[in-house]
Amino acid sequence: MLAELKIALGQMQVIPGHPDQNARKMLDMIQEAREQGAHLVVFPEMAIPGYLLGDTWEQTAFLRDCAYYGQQIVRAARDICVVFGNVAVDWQKKNEDGRVRKYNACFVAQDGRLVGGDNFIYPFRIKTLQPNYREFDDSRHFYSLRQLAQELACPVEEMLQPVEVVIDGSKLRLGCLLCEDGWSDDYAVRPMEVLARRAGAQLLLNISTSPYTRGKNQKRHRVFSRQVAGCGVPLVYVNSVGIQNNGKTVYTFDGFSTLYDRRGAVTDYVPPFQEELRVVTLSLQAEAGTAPKTLPPDDGIDSIYRALHYGIRNFLAATGISRVVIGISGGIDSAVSAALYARVMPPGDLLLVNMPGRYNSATTRGLAAQLAENLGCLYTVLPIQEAVDYTVKQLTQTPVQDPVHGRQLFLNITPPVTENIQARDRSARLLAGIAAAFGGGFTCNANKSELTVGYATLYGDQAGFLAALADLWKHQVYELAAYLNQQVYGRMVIPQGIMDIVPSAELSPEQAVDEGKGDPLVYPYHDYLFRAFMEHWNRATPEDILEWYMHGVLEEKIGCRPGLPGEIFPTAAHFIADLERWWTLYTGLAVAKRIQAPPVLAVSRRAYGFDHREAQNRPYFTARYRQLKEQLLKNCPPAER
Amino acid sequence: MLAELKIALGQMQVIPGHPDQNARKMLDMIQEAREQGAHLVVFPEMAIPGYLLGDTWEQTAFLRDCAYYGQQIVRAARDICVVFGNVAVDWQKKNEDGRVRKYNACFVAQDGRLVGGDNFIYPFRIKTLQPNYREFDDSRHFYSLRQLAQELACPVEEMLQPVEVVIDGSKLRLGCLLCEDGWSDDYAVRPMEVLARRAGAQLLLNISTSPYTRGKNQKRHRVFSRQVAGCGVPLVYVNSVGIQNNGKTVYTFDGFSTLYDRRGAVTDYVPPFQEELRVVTLSLQAEAGTAPKTLPPDDGIDSIYRALHYGIRNFLAATGISRVVIGISGGIDSAVSAALYARVMPPGDLLLVNMPGRYNSATTRGLAAQLAENLGCLYTVLPIQEAVDYTVKQLTQTPVQDPVHGRQLFLNITPPVTENIQARDRSARLLAGIAAAFGGGFTCNANKSELTVGYATLYGDQAGFLAALADLWKHQVYELAAYLNQQVYGRMVIPQGIMDIVPSAELSPEQAVDEGKGDPLVYPYHDYLFRAFMEHWNRATPEDILEWYMHGVLEEKIGCRPGLPGEIFPTAAHFIADLERWWTLYTGLAVAKRIQAPPVLAVSRRAYGFDHREAQNRPYFTARYRQLKEQLLKNCPPAER
Repeated sequence: MLAELKIALGQMQVIPGHPDQNARKMLDMIQEAREQGAHLVVFPEMAIPGYLLGDTWEQTAFLRDCAYYGQQIVRAARDICVVFGNVAVDWQKKNEDGRVRKYNACFVAQDGRLVGGDNFIYPFRIKTLQPNYREFDDSRHFYSLRQLAQELACPVEEMLQPVEVVIDGSKLRLGCLLCEDGWSDDYAVRPMEVLARRAGAQLLLNISTSPYTRGKNQKRHRVFSRQVAGCGVPLVYVNSVGIQNNGKTVYTFDGFSTLYDRRGAVTDYVPPFQEELRVVTLSLQAEAGTAPKTLPPDDGIDSIYRALHYGIRNFLAATGISRVVIGISGGIDSAVSAALYARVMPPGDLLLVNMPGRYNSATTRGLAAQLAENLGCLYTVLPIQEAVDYTVKQLTQTPVQDPVHGRQLFLNITPPVTENIQARDRSARLLAGIAAAFGGGFTCNANKSELTVGYATLYGDQAGFLAALADLWKHQVYELAAYLNQQVYGRMVIPQGIMDIVPSAELSPEQAVDEGKGDPLVYPYHDYLFRAFMEHWNRATPEDILEWYMHGVLEEKIGCRPGLPGEIFPTAAHFIADLERWWTLYTGLAVAKRIQAPPVLAVSRRAYGFDHREAQNRPYFTARYRQLKEQLLKNCPPAER
Repeated sequence: MLAELKIALGQMQVIPGHPDQNARKMLDMIQEAREQGAHLVVFPEMAIPGYLLGDTWEQTAFLRDCAYYGQQIVRAARDICVVFGNVAVDWQKKNEDGRVRKYNACFVAQDGRLVGGDNFIYPFRIKTLQPNYREFDDSRHFYSLRQLAQELACPVEEMLQPVEVVIDGSKLRLGCLLCEDGWSDDYAVRPMEVLARRAGAQLLLNISTSPYTRGKNQKRHRVFSRQVAGCGVPLVYVNSVGIQNNGKTVYTFDGFSTLYDRRGAVTDYVPPFQEELRVVTLSLQAEAGTAPKTLPPDDGIDSIYRALHYGIRNFLAATGISRVVIGISGGIDSAVSAALYARVMPPGDLLLVNMPGRYNSATTRGLAAQLAENLGCLYTVLPIQEAVDYTVKQLTQTPVQDPVHGRQLFLNITPPVTENIQARDRSARLLAGIAAAFGGGFTCNANKSELTVGYATLYGDQAGFLAALADLWKHQVYELAAYLNQQVYGRMVIPQGIMDIVPSAELSPEQAVDEGKGDPLVYPYHDYLFRAFMEHWNRATPEDILEWYMHGVLEEKIGCRPGLPGEIFPTAAHFIADLERWWTLYTGLAVAKRIQAPPVLAVSRRAYGFDHREAQNRPYFTARYRQLKEQLLKNCPPAER
């Protein structure tokens, strides 16, 4: 038996939907791995096609193309064993939608041919557990090993068979797992355990395409390490880097490929968010002496910054946008957006635009100019007031013919309507025009708190080619601002004044920052309330919130500062009115706005878009909520109800 | 045994996400059914919660609420047997995402309690086959009977058990099926056959929430009738009416509930798109004498009109929009849109707006005015040229500071940029402002051909609260125009001139309608090309198109007029250039636009949105495509390549 194995971790940047580019990259890496003397090179799940492709899986020409490039990889497997993910097609069988049968598969190639067909019906291995939660849609496209087992009336455990390869003359049984197969806690089947204990795999391989989520990598480590230690078989985890999206949501992939020894200790890993072929050595002896390494934490603001920076850079490259326009108001969101983009592109390709109207203070106009100066980008000021006044005049002074009553009407414009006219004038009239003239795109600077309740104007400040901050709560935007100044730039590029002023849209006299007036949201409370609605695994609703409020556990449950709700809301009636106001927006008008929102760059455990499927179904309050409300209001004096 | 059974088909309008309203409706219908002497009343699948709810299923409070209202229905089942769909929760078990176990279930209640717990582990029946194609996402939320069978290591056939009820003292075994269970052709299990033949069901019930798709109801009839005739057991099919959506796509539900006798013949049905409780009589004798009825066809333009009319009316009601603004250009799309909305709402609530600019001809301005007059709605004309000129001036004459080079820049505006400025001026500046002032929403009039290749401006003519025509190809829009004039209005409300002029955006001198200049699309060809990309079950790609072109079967495969491609494209090089142009847009920039498009009202077998999942992954051409192209171009003279 082999004493040690040299394994090349192919942490490649997968380009979704471009098998030609991926195959070329893999061929290069195979050559490099061979030159470095690796016995085995391992590539991520779906390395050839990419993973988040929408319904491209329904193009049979694309499937044939993936097979074509897969054959190229197999042929290149000479003097090295190659493991890679690809879609596998059985043209003789059908999926349950009547289309051709597709598997999310792991291929093992040696001596220019596929191996593993001796103890399984196919010369590849099939994903056993298919995720259908969060952004995943596996069952829409792929047939799982569990379905195949049911079709063949065979226990799935018997179908989990290792692939035997020969390395330096010794046989080695590889246990091939695909991503979710390693996350089996909530499933009836445990593929890792079955392969290691029942099927006698000597080395486990988990090939993944697993997106970055704040803190997820540490969780992956706990889940995988525990299982490895339990079964005593070493594990190679290879994950891709790059970005992939499903339209509404853009995911970064952090790689973080890891080698676990038989004790479940990390003996090597590839740093996150970088493409790298790394050759690691695994001792196959009973007691390996390698000192364990520690995976760096991935739940701090530094990790979020890294993901956003990586995501923006790659999104621009993927969409071919090389010049960017950002509307800066002198507020925190646009300032953070500008500081982020300024780290990704040359200053001559970044154009900041301040667009003051009647209600913008000298304070914020000055702060915007100061920010632009600090960042050293292109900068201009385009006032909106003349155009807004013209629009209001045109709308109110043009007669409308009413043949029903045989008269002329005139439209009336209320202050909230004027607020939205200002916001749309900035984005749809100016920014979109500037971006087109500048040869680029303009950003959406909305944050997650705003997106939750639709506190942004459709075709106005909600517009843009990418909403890079839309998965950060307002308090995280402030945290990121401080991190940018202190750690990224090492100087105050975002002026202190921007951190200090009250957050405000400055669209009316009621939002005058110099008088301390601003947004109707109390972020230190509402951020956490909204997070409970949106991010909690079992989503909180007004019913849950009221229960918690009644039992004095609200702060503990949602995570805001103890005592804060009591300071904001003098009575239960105030508390309830606020709760209903925001729930009604969150599940009402904000849904309509989000349907037309730009793609969101995801960093949290749930981002808006494909990981938060929603319907325009009007707000709803449960029967139990109405009972609780009645109960609480009974104790309020009538005047406050 | 009973000679005949009186069955009330509860073709109710299900309000998604509102169990309180649905339960109230069901209680009323139960009372009505009892008064009419029905033995049995049958409600649709998910009658209490609704079906397309996005991730509302992740709210445990909502699940408890559904159970609460479900109990009310069970208690009301006195002197009548009640069958209804609801979500069933097993709080002791987990789904594979770690959340609580949920089933898409059919409940049977009699004498104030649930029946069917004697021969199954739950007192309800579970959907066996869960669709995960098109707009369906069942496996994201629900645990199927097949999964349960695998978990319990029991053949799924053994778990398909009828529910025994007692009617007029006679026992009757009901075979309960949920929607997809009747569409088992591509599955390894056939629930209908198993229940009828193996489990001895005497009456099959299929409760559904099945959206309207052009021609689908006829297909349903063929599929169901064949199975009924095969097993010789009568079938009651109950489907809901109303609309449900998943954000990007809005579906109408046509009901069309049907009674099949044991021969598979239709003996009664409820007309489509109307809420109705209909009591039908089913003979349980061997030979029933009822004359079979014919289901009316549902694939013509009349059926599409009915679905659009129903969908618009219900979408307005569901979103609370009672006043509508439509920008009318004098072209066909906005004219059809206006004629549709004018049938849904009073003329005083519908405001038509013509917004001419420099390039709009007197012809189209006149046609717009004539259309408004014919429809008798509110009407106004708001020119855009002054505002557009102001914007161009502001953008080009305001200096941009460039600290990198220590200079001032000025932006330059090209003709295509001006085209988009005009389109955004109309929608984001004017229509959005007018709609807000008028207290309503404004429509998006884009058709499916435009949406396919992004031939619409983001925040411009692509904006609106609903895209009611966006699932119709351009030729269908013309067909609908003729139908509106001839069948709906019985007069030329859409002027002949609108049908006759060349389709054009009128945004530049190159689009002058009076000179016969217009869109770059040849709709009689491109409509069919795009349909092959988008609607074919196995989506066509340039590779398939070239193969068909080479083999002379293109017209047959895509369905356009024979000979047409040859008339348009003198050489293969022209054909290929056109193909690549539109494929690049369809899978490129148009994806970015669709991400921010309004909800689409679905009528076809595939609408944009949730039934066409897509990623922003840049256009791709397969290796085989490149080979075919090379082969074809070899035969072209060099000058034409």
